[in-house]
Amino acid sequence: MRYAVIGAGAVGGYFGGRLANAGRDVCFLLHSDYDYVCSHGLRVDSCRGDFLLNPVQAYRDAAGLPQCDVVLVGLKTVNNHLLPGLLRKVAGPETLVVLIQNGIGMEDDLQKAMPGLQIAAATAFICSSKIGPGHICHMDYGSLTIANYSCRDTAKLDTLVGDLKDSGVETYTADYLLARWRKAVWNMPFNGMTVALNTSTAQLLANPATRQLIKEQMMEVIGAANACGVMGLDESFADKQIATTDKMTPYKPSMKLDYDNGRPMEIDYLYSHPIAIAAAAGFEMTRLKMLEAQLRFLSNNK
Amino acid sequence: MRYAVIGAGAVGGYFGGRLANAGRDVCFLLHSDYDYVCSHGLRVDSCRGDFLLNPVQAYRDAAGLPQCDVVLVGLKTVNNHLLPGLLRKVAGPETLVVLIQNGIGMEDDLQKAMPGLQIAAATAFICSSKIGPGHICHMDYGSLTIANYSCRDTAKLDTLVGDLKDSGVETYTADYLLARWRKAVWNMPFNGMTVALNTSTAQLLANPATRQLIKEQMMEVIGAANACGVMGLDESFADKQIATTDKMTPYKPSMKLDYDNGRPMEIDYLYSHPIAIAAAAGFEMTRLKMLEAQLRFLSNNK
Repeated sequence: MRYAVIGAGAVGGYFGGRLANAGRDVCFLLHSDYDYVCSHGLRVDSCRGDFLLNPVQAYRDAAGLPQCDVVLVGLKTVNNHLLPGLLRKVAGPETLVVLIQNGIGMEDDLQKAMPGLQIAAATAFICSSKIGPGHICHMDYGSLTIANYSCRDTAKLDTLVGDLKDSGVETYTADYLLARWRKAVWNMPFNGMTVALNTSTAQLLANPATRQLIKEQMMEVIGAANACGVMGLDESFADKQIATTDKMTPYKPSMKLDYDNGRPMEIDYLYSHPIAIAAAAGFEMTRLKMLEAQLRFLSNNK
Repeated sequence: MRYAVIGAGAVGGYFGGRLANAGRDVCFLLHSDYDYVCSHGLRVDSCRGDFLLNPVQAYRDAAGLPQCDVVLVGLKTVNNHLLPGLLRKVAGPETLVVLIQNGIGMEDDLQKAMPGLQIAAATAFICSSKIGPGHICHMDYGSLTIANYSCRDTAKLDTLVGDLKDSGVETYTADYLLARWRKAVWNMPFNGMTVALNTSTAQLLANPATRQLIKEQMMEVIGAANACGVMGLDESFADKQIATTDKMTPYKPSMKLDYDNGRPMEIDYLYSHPIAIAAAAGFEMTRLKMLEAQLRFLSNNK
């Protein structure tokens, strides 16, 4: 199996790096880091063991990538409009494209743009960040959940899961809608609220008023998921998410990091799309729609 | 008629000052400004004409106030727990106490604490601020709406309205619940949202997402008012409030000024009480409850 990684940042770089470090054939599409990685390699400082990849199969231009069996996409969703162009060469009819992204609706949009494409979704549970060119720091966790969206070649999906496990990545599989909405139960409240109130997950949970609000927002996501036909998410799942977050070290979600660093926020796929999908299923996400409006305001008035 | 003013700040000081300037008998209860006002008087720089009151019937201690016919209360509602003590001497069985305050539920609570008391509500539409000891700056507007809550002596209420008009104050009367809820339609969205997003009324209306949210929040207040039996408030009223605000000079609501200056915010009577009253009538103010939680958070984590 030949792999490509598009968006080799904190997430794509880590999982692609793990595969390459275990001897898999992995091509990395790089932009600003291309020259640095060509001469110094890709370094991963990881709580599960540091490693350095050198040399790296680095590509500067998507048009130069060979056709691959699996493409791991680690881009932020704000760049998803670039995907059809980036995938044109690397993805053929047999290729499986895996979106390791946060949000809901990315697969629908990509499928509309590229009807024959085989797509899977992945949700990452990981604390990692890019701390310099070709340099990723992996602080905690590091598991991946893979969910089939439109992959006809399920053997390839199984091989991907096996390769990840063999590379030291804790890997699970799940139903597509369940995987995406389950992740949203945590993502939608905490990402936006840490930005809106300029704070951390721990402080939000320490205050009784916002702790209650976070719970209500989680229940809103669960209500939306149920309306969309996702079963197996209920109040106990929300309580478990809050209990888990209580035990985490105070944490800045990715949207908070994006906002603080002047990068665009993933408002479309983290808020607007799921809110619209839920509304189409007859469920109003009133609180998260309000949060979306506050984020739109902050995004335009920074 | 003998008047007393408790809470002689930007609002109480202005309206009490107008009455005194027109020759009415007005006693002012003063705390930190007492010495300054005794020697320099009370100055009002007003867009409707400046004036200086000197001497002022100033009192340092509520226990020293004479019993009065009408007491105008201009305190912030965060101090309403002090009212029974402050009113003990100045208010007898014939006295009318007028709460010139923002929020909903203040009269209910004061009546519970002082069952026989005659109470009226007043809503002020005014831009004014205290800019120094004994010095009020009145920038714009300046009308007062009086609404009977539990006043048995309606002749006294009529005299008050007449005295205010004779003193140059544009004065209206209205139904009690209508007056309080109508004011809340503007107050509840704009006060909290300018604090939560650290902005002005104009910026909130300039952004399409928050403009829509403000409208939805106004409709939530109108829905709550209707559930509480208040008629005559509908969508056209919300639209009119937004159109009026579009024409106002960019404006920091009182809660934003309180927050920016490190003073406590009036969250209880501006949010918690109306939200609880609406819930008891079967109406959930979902968005404003979320805003309340955000304000509680900001209030505790400044």
